[in-house]
Amino acid sequence: MTTEGPALLDGLRAVLAANDVITDPDLVETHRHDRAPGLGAGHPLAVVRPRTTGQVAAVVRLAVEHGVPIVPRGAGSGLSGGSNAVEGALSVVLDRMDAIVEIDPVDGVAVVQPGVLNGRLRAAAREHGLWYAPDPASSEFCSIGGNVATNAGGLCCVKYGVTRDCVLALEVVLPDGSVTRLGHRSIKGVAGYDLTGLFVGSEGTLGLITEATVRLLPLPAPARTVVGVLPSLEAASAAVGTIVTAMRPSLLELLDRTTMRVVEEYRPLGLDTGAAALLIGQTDQPGEAGREEAVLLERAMREAGATEVVSSSDPAESELLLAARRLAYPAYERLGRLFLEDVAVPRGRLGELIARVEALSADGLTIGTFGHAGDGNLHPTVVARAGDEGALAAASAAFEAIMDAALELGGTVTGEHGVGLLKRGGLARELDAANRRLQRDIKRALDPRGLFNPGKALAAEPPRPRAPRP
Amino acid sequence: MTTEGPALLDGLRAVLAANDVITDPDLVETHRHDRAPGLGAGHPLAVVRPRTTGQVAAVVRLAVEHGVPIVPRGAGSGLSGGSNAVEGALSVVLDRMDAIVEIDPVDGVAVVQPGVLNGRLRAAAREHGLWYAPDPASSEFCSIGGNVATNAGGLCCVKYGVTRDCVLALEVVLPDGSVTRLGHRSIKGVAGYDLTGLFVGSEGTLGLITEATVRLLPLPAPARTVVGVLPSLEAASAAVGTIVTAMRPSLLELLDRTTMRVVEEYRPLGLDTGAAALLIGQTDQPGEAGREEAVLLERAMREAGATEVVSSSDPAESELLLAARRLAYPAYERLGRLFLEDVAVPRGRLGELIARVEALSADGLTIGTFGHAGDGNLHPTVVARAGDEGALAAASAAFEAIMDAALELGGTVTGEHGVGLLKRGGLARELDAANRRLQRDIKRALDPRGLFNPGKALAAEPPRPRAPRP
Repeated sequence: MTTEGPALLDGLRAVLAANDVITDPDLVETHRHDRAPGLGAGHPLAVVRPRTTGQVAAVVRLAVEHGVPIVPRGAGSGLSGGSNAVEGALSVVLDRMDAIVEIDPVDGVAVVQPGVLNGRLRAAAREHGLWYAPDPASSEFCSIGGNVATNAGGLCCVKYGVTRDCVLALEVVLPDGSVTRLGHRSIKGVAGYDLTGLFVGSEGTLGLITEATVRLLPLPAPARTVVGVLPSLEAASAAVGTIVTAMRPSLLELLDRTTMRVVEEYRPLGLDTGAAALLIGQTDQPGEAGREEAVLLERAMREAGATEVVSSSDPAESELLLAARRLAYPAYERLGRLFLEDVAVPRGRLGELIARVEALSADGLTIGTFGHAGDGNLHPTVVARAGDEGALAAASAAFEAIMDAALELGGTVTGEHGVGLLKRGGLARELDAANRRLQRDIKRALDPRGLFNPGKALAAEPPRPRAPRP
Repeated sequence: MTTEGPALLDGLRAVLAANDVITDPDLVETHRHDRAPGLGAGHPLAVVRPRTTGQVAAVVRLAVEHGVPIVPRGAGSGLSGGSNAVEGALSVVLDRMDAIVEIDPVDGVAVVQPGVLNGRLRAAAREHGLWYAPDPASSEFCSIGGNVATNAGGLCCVKYGVTRDCVLALEVVLPDGSVTRLGHRSIKGVAGYDLTGLFVGSEGTLGLITEATVRLLPLPAPARTVVGVLPSLEAASAAVGTIVTAMRPSLLELLDRTTMRVVEEYRPLGLDTGAAALLIGQTDQPGEAGREEAVLLERAMREAGATEVVSSSDPAESELLLAARRLAYPAYERLGRLFLEDVAVPRGRLGELIARVEALSADGLTIGTFGHAGDGNLHPTVVARAGDEGALAAASAAFEAIMDAALELGGTVTGEHGVGLLKRGGLARELDAANRRLQRDIKRALDPRGLFNPGKALAAEPPRPRAPRP
């Protein structure tokens, strides 16, 4: 504990309920990591769970007064260590602020506190015939505050955009303890710099989000699903290209050969593991338009050389067709120490990226790719055989090589999971020197003492030189 | 001319072609104002028209060296004075950088220089069966650089979003003369703070945009148009509410009684000037889905009490039905000195806003409202009878009162035109003190010497107190 510790704890106990200031080591331990495997975490001074914006502001003012850093945390479902604890810092968990304040169908907005789970908001909107579009795979156990802090994506982004596209306004507590409102409840607005957008994806480094006003849309029609088995990566890429230039699928996912094999070994679904790739497309256009788009999906896959194409308009059957995609992560996870990538490339470079990932295979490693083909955001996955130190080192090197490949193909090191602790090196390679300087200038302008989520999200300096091209 | 003037001009002539450094008073005069009537403009030291990013960077470094401010300018079509000249500054016009560098259908992007006109990009995309969605009314004479700098909107925003939603990456010249790239060519990406979003809508106060990578979508189906004549503002609001909760129209515009009268006096179209409002809705869903949505538009208007509803699926006829909307601005403009508002409110408050605007009528004034009902962004318009000083003062007061009304209804002072010179007072009333401080902190971090577009876009300080509620 820092020398500031006892006085700060006394102060916290004066503004928060006793139960909301947690120092019990076992309880603290459950808040030290997010879901990213293998990343370090410090031992926090305390975990606090404020219940109101006023309490959050009081906590921030106390922390600033004592010079103690703050790590904002939502539901702890992150995949890049963004909310991992920092030694001697306060972990401020916003899970007790979980009210859906308001849903207004005509305005087309929901006002929610940060601890509301994504799936709960989606269910509440559905009762009004409305839809909150962003649907991370963690929908049932991730919170809106974390979604906003990481600009979370999901399966439906390809048509409906990411979290950023659905956030109209935020209430935030700034690093000086003041409370402000950013953005507007109206659908449009250009008054001043887009600070709402700046806070979305800022991973807790600029302040704490205490309320979000998000956009709701009319609920789309039930999806039709088309699944195609493709004989080569080139064929799969060609099908993706044909589809995205002709229509806007509401989902377009890809699994490569290794992913199909790993899933099939985990849960036999009858996948053709001899094929190169599985493409899963959906359309949520209603009626005849949906039937026509489903035909377009089928035709694009067949013309690209699909050996099999299956189509369904039944929701339960559609969900079955998506099962292989949903099982990918757990299927890989059980094989050993997992490194989950999150790179994105321009859609025309998808096939090249997957081929480069396949070429990284080595003894003791399982390497495969699945992800959001429709917007070029893939999750190449590297698993090192458990207990094999050589494989672990090779996996770590492969993880870095995948980021470099994405950058060489004109892409980015993270499409939706964020930088956190995991991608600080990759970020340093992605951004040029002037951009890195700009990022730091922004951080310093808002948090001059560097107390908010230190060591996260910003580029590591100096950057590791890019690997020379082969 | 400042004492720095001659040396700076020599420097500019060393890096730019002789014709690209303009000091001839007549030529300079044509670049002093944008299209906002009645706003002040200084006399620039020179107008320069660089042709390459390298030239832009050289111009910035020279200006910084001599301590001379820079006013970025695109096509000069702005409506809030954002590119009006500043006394003794350099006006940097980017109209010579007008190349469409690339259109890539599979990646779904266009790479364009800032001087490319919006309509030209839309036409070029159309040749590939693709669509650049943002369509300001000035489409044929506004440039992409200006669209990005102001986060321009348009008629199709209600379904497809504003410029912000279509910008993936930017090349910018920063206030220190360095060149950097922000964002990514991939559709998704969360690497670092969203500086692309920060630059969109920053109105030339943070740097100069020298290239934009924008998103293209598949061309939607031709629109079906439904026009309804509503007997009251309440009825029009009710129809809008029914429509936006049930579907996503590709256009949803409103004209109030005064606007219908003014248009009818300008060009007789047979509008029912006894009615309270005209609603114009479109759907671009294909085939049967489009027919169904058109029926939904019709039914919503009829159930709200429409006295007449006309529908068409013929593109030429649809354009005729939109004529009244397109004629609104020129119809008002000829009546005297025009004050064009651009407020936005939550959609549920549309009727209240229009009623408050109507209540501001006074001798010598014409006050009416038209605009983008589907996303709550309206253009109340106040015209003072020419040569009537009393009317001019009343118009100016009404203009301010409309902003206050929008703020009281939970809205914003500008939905799509930007702050420029025109709304600095309104912005100061909209943003709370902490938000205003944040805006200035960001500005100072990027442009510590305050050389980029000084006196624009940021809140006037100290803010005028909000008018007391009636």
